[in-house]
Amino acid sequence: MKADEKIWFASDYMEGAHPEVMRRLEDTNLLHTPGYGMDAFSESAREKIRQACACPEAEIWFLSGGTQVNATVLTALLQPYQGVIAAGSGHINVHEAGAVEYGGHKVLALPHENGILRPETVEAFVKDFWADENREHMVMPGAVYISQPTEYGTLYSLRDLEALSRLCREYGMALYVDGARLAYALACPENDVQLSDLARLCDAFYIGGTKCGTLFGEALVFPKKGRIPHFYTMTKQHGAMLAKGRIAGVMFETLFSNDLYRRIGETAMLAAQRIRAALDDLGIEQVFGSTTNQIFIALDEKQLRDFGARVEMSFWEKRADGKTVMRLATSWATTGADVDALITVLSGNAG
Amino acid sequence: MKADEKIWFASDYMEGAHPEVMRRLEDTNLLHTPGYGMDAFSESAREKIRQACACPEAEIWFLSGGTQVNATVLTALLQPYQGVIAAGSGHINVHEAGAVEYGGHKVLALPHENGILRPETVEAFVKDFWADENREHMVMPGAVYISQPTEYGTLYSLRDLEALSRLCREYGMALYVDGARLAYALACPENDVQLSDLARLCDAFYIGGTKCGTLFGEALVFPKKGRIPHFYTMTKQHGAMLAKGRIAGVMFETLFSNDLYRRIGETAMLAAQRIRAALDDLGIEQVFGSTTNQIFIALDEKQLRDFGARVEMSFWEKRADGKTVMRLATSWATTGADVDALITVLSGNAG
Amino acid sequence: MKADEKIWFASDYMEGAHPEVMRRLEDTNLLHTPGYGMDAFSESAREKIRQACACPEAEIWFLSGGTQVNATVLTALLQPYQGVIAAGSGHINVHEAGAVEYGGHKVLALPHENGILRPETVEAFVKDFWADENREHMVMPGAVYISQPTEYGTLYSLRDLEALSRLCREYGMALYVDGARLAYALACPENDVQLSDLARLCDAFYIGGTKCGTLFGEALVFPKKGRIPHFYTMTKQHGAMLAKGRIAGVMFETLFSNDLYRRIGETAMLAAQRIRAALDDLGIEQVFGSTTNQIFIALDEKQLRDFGARVEMSFWEKRADGKTVMRLATSWATTGADVDALITVLSGNAG
Amino acid sequence: MKADEKIWFASDYMEGAHPEVMRRLEDTNLLHTPGYGMDAFSESAREKIRQACACPEAEIWFLSGGTQVNATVLTALLQPYQGVIAAGSGHINVHEAGAVEYGGHKVLALPHENGILRPETVEAFVKDFWADENREHMVMPGAVYISQPTEYGTLYSLRDLEALSRLCREYGMALYVDGARLAYALACPENDVQLSDLARLCDAFYIGGTKCGTLFGEALVFPKKGRIPHFYTMTKQHGAMLAKGRIAGVMFETLFSNDLYRRIGETAMLAAQRIRAALDDLGIEQVFGSTTNQIFIALDEKQLRDFGARVEMSFWEKRADGKTVMRLATSWATTGADVDALITVLSGNAG
Repeated sequence: MKADEKIWFASDYMEGAHPEVMRRLEDTNLLHTPGYGMDAFSESAREKIRQACACPEAEIWFLSGGTQVNATVLTALLQPYQGVIAAGSGHINVHEAGAVEYGGHKVLALPHENGILRPETVEAFVKDFWADENREHMVMPGAVYISQPTEYGTLYSLRDLEALSRLCREYGMALYVDGARLAYALACPENDVQLSDLARLCDAFYIGGTKCGTLFGEALVFPKKGRIPHFYTMTKQHGAMLAKGRIAGVMFETLFSNDLYRRIGETAMLAAQRIRAALDDLGIEQVFGSTTNQIFIALDEKQLRDFGARVEMSFWEKRADGKTVMRLATSWATTGADVDALITVLSGNAG
Repeated sequence: MKADEKIWFASDYMEGAHPEVMRRLEDTNLLHTPGYGMDAFSESAREKIRQACACPEAEIWFLSGGTQVNATVLTALLQPYQGVIAAGSGHINVHEAGAVEYGGHKVLALPHENGILRPETVEAFVKDFWADENREHMVMPGAVYISQPTEYGTLYSLRDLEALSRLCREYGMALYVDGARLAYALACPENDVQLSDLARLCDAFYIGGTKCGTLFGEALVFPKKGRIPHFYTMTKQHGAMLAKGRIAGVMFETLFSNDLYRRIGETAMLAAQRIRAALDDLGIEQVFGSTTNQIFIALDEKQLRDFGARVEMSFWEKRADGKTVMRLATSWATTGADVDALITVLSGNAG
Repeated sequence: MKADEKIWFASDYMEGAHPEVMRRLEDTNLLHTPGYGMDAFSESAREKIRQACACPEAEIWFLSGGTQVNATVLTALLQPYQGVIAAGSGHINVHEAGAVEYGGHKVLALPHENGILRPETVEAFVKDFWADENREHMVMPGAVYISQPTEYGTLYSLRDLEALSRLCREYGMALYVDGARLAYALACPENDVQLSDLARLCDAFYIGGTKCGTLFGEALVFPKKGRIPHFYTMTKQHGAMLAKGRIAGVMFETLFSNDLYRRIGETAMLAAQRIRAALDDLGIEQVFGSTTNQIFIALDEKQLRDFGARVEMSFWEKRADGKTVMRLATSWATTGADVDALITVLSGNAG
Repeated sequence: MKADEKIWFASDYMEGAHPEVMRRLEDTNLLHTPGYGMDAFSESAREKIRQACACPEAEIWFLSGGTQVNATVLTALLQPYQGVIAAGSGHINVHEAGAVEYGGHKVLALPHENGILRPETVEAFVKDFWADENREHMVMPGAVYISQPTEYGTLYSLRDLEALSRLCREYGMALYVDGARLAYALACPENDVQLSDLARLCDAFYIGGTKCGTLFGEALVFPKKGRIPHFYTMTKQHGAMLAKGRIAGVMFETLFSNDLYRRIGETAMLAAQRIRAALDDLGIEQVFGSTTNQIFIALDEKQLRDFGARVEMSFWEKRADGKTVMRLATSWATTGADVDALITVLSGNAG
């Protein structure tokens, strides 16, 4: 496979599962269990996640992918006449093919700062809504969607999250956090939001598996027991119920054993920190202020051509100044050798 | 795990993946590939399926589960004002939590014979529809959904399938086949419908993975190229797009290598045939006329108690005569020892 | 207009509004009022309806047509994972083009007796549902829909309605009554269900205008205040909010003034009774047991041809015995002369 | 009714129907016709509209209100994976309670100039979309929605409309025009877009009735025959099919007889022009550049209080500079005396 001669930093879902996860799948492969997440592996995974979140009553569901979780949970959290507030850059607003709207709900897109939805922005919007005489002709904001880390790799501070949570409770909205890359937020030195904070402040959030060590699968957490009755049926109705639910159970049980979820995050963050330091040294422009496992760099024509010949990156956007923003992503699968090779390429071509 | 002391015949999704599938997942685990099914494994799997179906132009998609495939493909095949004809016993009508209706379409449920929708039944219905002066106030039949094998383990004959296909073309309907357990139909001696027949006669069908050897995943086949534009986006919109699409690709590539899909079916059928012979010998009533890997037996109170203490079966229904219909399912994971043990239990308690 | 030379019994929506309604529209035509049902006419109409229903706290909304009311109110009454039980012959199941499914909900169609959904039928169904181990894979019954009178012109007795109401409360379902032709039920001598009974026993019902004297419009009643928050927005979202809501308000205020709704029903019932007596005398077969303003007759070829040449009727169905079932409908607009002319035609041709 | 002592300029739907429309409703009230728009009045209205649009093959449907028309027609024009481009200020984006999203489609909101969606804005957006490597993860633009006049009373020029139409054809999008207040655009001296231009350049548009002389109802025009198969059923499915379709037919037949639609527009425009001249003389700030029947004025605290005591206006928005933007709307029902009274009030308080 020729492409493998390149150095792969295109995304954090280019390999299979973390080797510990894969080994556990193999070890348990021929055991018999009931279907639909009613098995002991899934229950054990749930219990470990409850402990990690310091939230003993949490209800936890394993679904296959992020878009599916977002669409299903928002249908559950919203009334038919409500929409969900999100940053304009939010994944549900841009890159989920209109799944939320397909489920009947408007995404109320608001301005953002490097992917972060400021509490002040939300507050101004909901105050205006509730003050509007014509609000019954409008879509009522019923939930706030944020991503931690954001699509730009940035982080909500605990203070921001607390402010958003207060706003949500004041204005009768659910707070929902998309944690597709949550391991990389948790392992980031700048981060001050723990799993227990998410459990305390949100109505629902998901702990990403697909981009953080599993073959597929996300763990959706409802911290408050009974928050969503009959979520099992809603999951089935959205085609999101796994017949062999135990596969997700085995994978998440492994992620939350022996500190693996933390180790996965750290591996990616150490790689990212080395790369960021090299970029600084080399004077290559980093953008968006990402502090997690996604690194956005602005390249000129020559850099784009030279790096692109050796490194798999993701195209992000063409800038007005002619530079091209590209994304490098590290993950649990990034090795020290990968980073070395990348830095060599960058050095040979930088500025 | 105490439950494992029982003999497991509850369903065909109680274990992980076929060992050959698991091995291949492990072997390829750390290779890098692009996401979303754009990888070489997925393309190779598609090519092998095209060959198995003798349909070189088929478009093939890998989705995570059956309900999801059904809901997504029916949205693609139907116009907003159309519904889908199905047997009253059809999986989409009974056990998918209203996923088709959630997508906006009515299931037009018709009477069946042991799960089989007779062509005559469909014909009478569509003739009545098109003759009705008020038909513009009614849901137009836009597709026919059948399962091969059916939910009762029975099979459509090639003759039936050809008749349904003719009807569909005559009345402007799509024909769609749910093949969740297709391996077990293909391996059944009574079966005369091959993959190439499905490709020739249907607008879409899926080749089941979850119940036939994979961890998850179904291969949806559109035999005619260009039949559904932008299905990629529809898949994403339904939350059915796998980020690590290559996992499904690897699994289906393996299923369609070295004759594995056929071998999986045969293992289950050999087990089923031994069990059926024993049931006949023991005078235990079999119902619904299933000839595939699902065996339905009608048990009296004592049998239900005695067998139930030793064997994991599925409850099917309580009959008016007081007997209880239970389901035994074989699969690729059923061993000769399992069958021996089952027959011993049945023998000790029969009659 | 040549068609007017025929005698019109095809339906109860072939003319404009009752003359008293039309006169009131003209008298109020140039007055200024706020839009969206916030006007004094609408409020007065609501108050009169509350009094007629002996239900001072009822919330009342005016929507433009029956299908729209049904789809909107069912979305409001049901959770996303719930469906609505209805007779197989129910209008929502047959003649509303799948509007309920378009809104995401399954119609759980059950057998009926001349359009009537027997309480025993509903009870058996919901008991089975709640006893089913797989019920979380199925559509939960969340409401019961009935029509009073039914699509076959038959009536629920107070005893039936009370039984259905008890069942609904026991099993957590809403009871909803489609009263498209309610005036003709209320005026029927066999009827023992009053508006106050509907208010006492149902979660929602609508008082039909379109077929009972208005140009368009139905009055939806939620007997219990606060039952459906933000129904205004749901109405708008369904395109069911009338900008000039006052037009419906004026029409319903008139219907519920000077006993007009009762008089409208009586006019139609007197005509229907004369026609039924004549049919009995003439030995023309009446079917379905209708006792309200719809009269179903089974005609042979010659009768069909002869009557059809003179009378506008509606085709209902072709029977296996070769006879054709046709519908005659009376209304507020049926005159004594119309009935005389009809009887003359029937007499001249009767068998 | 005390409110009537005020001068009413709050909106253009505060009265019943134009007297000629009302008279015709009365004259035809007791005639018998078939239902569902199959009557001779509706057919005559369609023929007159075809002539007014110089479009002999146009298919025309009468629905009850604007939100309903928009939601129904967009479902018909869009594929499930497509969304509709609209100005951020567009009625479908702001004031229809998410009806388009309820139907499963995203509104792709773009920046506007006083309510006008510039062709350049649309072009840049669709070019970006089609150049984006990830476009299959995004909502494809499938239609462009504009309002003529816009929600701010401004007008698309023929040149703009032609540019939008060319873009739509180039990029495979439908062009749809919301003409809720179309009479007031057609009668505006600045307007250079005729009905025949709409028929030539659009895939669908509607000619507003509710705000332009009828009790309710909009005439939806598909200029190209066969553009939308089975729209009848889609209309029924959306609860938008009028049983007594002939009422809308009678009203639109009247609007398009004796030049009434033009006269209605002119009455409103003459009133608006007198008011604008007075505002200019009085130095009261007009905003948004409206040239049609909606007049937006920015008032200080005192003006707001003084005018508000005498004139029914609509609140529009609070400005950062402390002024309040209010809307005055004229209509067919605005009399010379109303305008005189308004000018007197404004004069007494201006400055």
